[in-house]
Amino acid sequence: MQPTIDQLKDIPYPLTPASEIADRIARLQAKLGAAGLDGALIVQNVDLHYFSGTMQNAHLYVPAAGEAALFVWKSLTRARHESPLRDVVALRSPRDLPKLLTERGYKPAHIGLELDVLAVNQFRSYERAFENVAFSDCWPLIRSVRLIKSAWEVAQIERAGEISSAQISAVLNALHPGVTELEAAAAGEYAGRVLGHEYAVRMRGLNNDLDVGYASSGPSGAYATAMLTCNGGLGLSPSHAQGASWRRIQRGEPVLADFVGLYNGYLADQTRTLSIGPLPDDLQRAYAATRQIHDAMVAALRPGNTAEDVYNIGVGLAGELGYAENIQGYGEQQVNFIGHGVGLELNEWPAIARSVTEPLQPGMVIALEPKLAFPAVGMVGIENTWLVTRDQPRRLTTLPEELACVPA
Amino acid sequence: MQPTIDQLKDIPYPLTPASEIADRIARLQAKLGAAGLDGALIVQNVDLHYFSGTMQNAHLYVPAAGEAALFVWKSLTRARHESPLRDVVALRSPRDLPKLLTERGYKPAHIGLELDVLAVNQFRSYERAFENVAFSDCWPLIRSVRLIKSAWEVAQIERAGEISSAQISAVLNALHPGVTELEAAAAGEYAGRVLGHEYAVRMRGLNNDLDVGYASSGPSGAYATAMLTCNGGLGLSPSHAQGASWRRIQRGEPVLADFVGLYNGYLADQTRTLSIGPLPDDLQRAYAATRQIHDAMVAALRPGNTAEDVYNIGVGLAGELGYAENIQGYGEQQVNFIGHGVGLELNEWPAIARSVTEPLQPGMVIALEPKLAFPAVGMVGIENTWLVTRDQPRRLTTLPEELACVPA
Repeated sequence: MQPTIDQLKDIPYPLTPASEIADRIARLQAKLGAAGLDGALIVQNVDLHYFSGTMQNAHLYVPAAGEAALFVWKSLTRARHESPLRDVVALRSPRDLPKLLTERGYKPAHIGLELDVLAVNQFRSYERAFENVAFSDCWPLIRSVRLIKSAWEVAQIERAGEISSAQISAVLNALHPGVTELEAAAAGEYAGRVLGHEYAVRMRGLNNDLDVGYASSGPSGAYATAMLTCNGGLGLSPSHAQGASWRRIQRGEPVLADFVGLYNGYLADQTRTLSIGPLPDDLQRAYAATRQIHDAMVAALRPGNTAEDVYNIGVGLAGELGYAENIQGYGEQQVNFIGHGVGLELNEWPAIARSVTEPLQPGMVIALEPKLAFPAVGMVGIENTWLVTRDQPRRLTTLPEELACVPA
Repeated sequence: MQPTIDQLKDIPYPLTPASEIADRIARLQAKLGAAGLDGALIVQNVDLHYFSGTMQNAHLYVPAAGEAALFVWKSLTRARHESPLRDVVALRSPRDLPKLLTERGYKPAHIGLELDVLAVNQFRSYERAFENVAFSDCWPLIRSVRLIKSAWEVAQIERAGEISSAQISAVLNALHPGVTELEAAAAGEYAGRVLGHEYAVRMRGLNNDLDVGYASSGPSGAYATAMLTCNGGLGLSPSHAQGASWRRIQRGEPVLADFVGLYNGYLADQTRTLSIGPLPDDLQRAYAATRQIHDAMVAALRPGNTAEDVYNIGVGLAGELGYAENIQGYGEQQVNFIGHGVGLELNEWPAIARSVTEPLQPGMVIALEPKLAFPAVGMVGIENTWLVTRDQPRRLTTLPEELACVPA
């Protein structure tokens, strides 16, 4: 006998509504048909969860027309409980997939795979298992479905935003002269965790491991990192070389608190600038500039504009205010984006970046994060996560936007 | 001006000694030559860190003979500070790699890549950039170098073991009737974090996201998960469907606390069974059986035996003691291994598993984790991380092994 969900049924564990799954699959099927693909074979965990409602070890086949099928290696019990799909069966080996598709009347000649993340060795095992089948990258299609968030998804992101607010508030409360960045970050992480933060913040692609707690201070905040972000942070060792370090925070230094809330798989990204005692006047002016840049970008975050339009407004204003060299990092750390899509992964589409001509649409969720880096001094900035609507965008992260300071 | 490390030089930030890097590269070069490869082009972050001492966004070329070169996209400043390699230069685009190799006198015809993790799209970009070059999987070679730990590496793992002990002790201290698994796990995570736990526990391969805190109780502890592990745990949602949940822990239930310490990139894996008030007699007997199984496997963990030999001793003794159906999970959750290599990733070689005929060698670090699952009741077990030596193995995780119980 397996433990049944009956014994655990009174424990909060939010599932994805069946109507969400049906809508997502229908939208993907339309795109598969238009792209000339007979189906998509989905294996990456976030995409699996998005289209099936469960993140078990499984293969999801979505035909261009017909019923989707979930083939589960482990755990079938859990997959059947969590997924609203009707065709959820055991899979002993991926070699059995062609036969399982044939049994369902599917004879695909052209299948989409997530070639942006699927490893070569695993891909070659599918090439061996499927004879006379061509494979193409279906990630652009999946990305374009995930791009538009439903009202249910937005509600999850708002809950993640509340968790992120609790994290940053706890960092602020932990500040005192001499506290380490690590202690402050840990206080924020703990505050989020006990509210239901799910720990592992996902960012698509190889090597994109993320710490949840970015609380970096003074020169550490402007020290370069490997990530495609302007955030600095010495980190704890070359193996986790970003974010909080053992540095002791001093009076009057900017503390950049960039925290990702996480609820039911959904993320919300928020940054505030904190300090022990007031910041020096030049950094107060710089922070006011980031708020001005943020607000100008928010006003442009609506249908009719492209992602690049919003980027250009932000970078242009930074230049007008005298911060061309400081916006989104300094020197080699400077990056060509001031925002990014947010959803189940932290690097969703569209990037608010140079050369991204994607038109903005209602239902996109986008974090805007203007930040100014001053080498040897630190970084100041603000970030909120926004829902694009037909009119003005709606803010999903709700901490006050003023500089937050504890007494020195 | 970039912020220089001078401003941050007094902050603890452990680097890998140059002698370690030189030894690792020499061992890889010997294997490359023996395999007929002209060089390895390394991009995965953990392998990069292992062979270069830095985990920046970079490509490392290790020729079968000659000097290794690190080509860095971001951050060059940090890579030059952290890596003892002499040839560390900027890389604008991976398309420049063939030219950069030619400039160094390398004209490879056959290059090794990490095809176990490298995504298809990225692989194809290397196929386009390099004309008339054949590519093979060099992960088996890298794995066989990483397999044998140096004394310096063992010292890092011991420090990680201390962090893991602090985590589990904090979980025990957090137990009281009605506490949620999540609150108990969060207490353990916080205790480890302030000691320098680096947050993101790495496990090689797509979809292997890990929460650090496994603190699952009663029936939740035996509820199946997607991971290749016998550990259960309801988790918080289908998107993080393992480990701690909102379940409230009751008196007399087994709490499986499985925590991975993490220091300077290195991991140590440790599990203890905790409870509020004493466990029922049958579970006390089961826990005693896991200690007996553990000790029998430890006695066999030495050169002259294979990984499978150790596995067979563990599974055989579990059967003799009447737990054939419960060892390493029950029903569909039962897995065919009782241990695994530990180092920079949690799923290192060798697995202590059926059909793994790898001979044990001094310098291997292996976690042994016999656990017994009882559906609807819970899971009990123990886990320690061990260093294989010429004689008896050395224990790197040092909590007392008795059942740990707080007053009810």
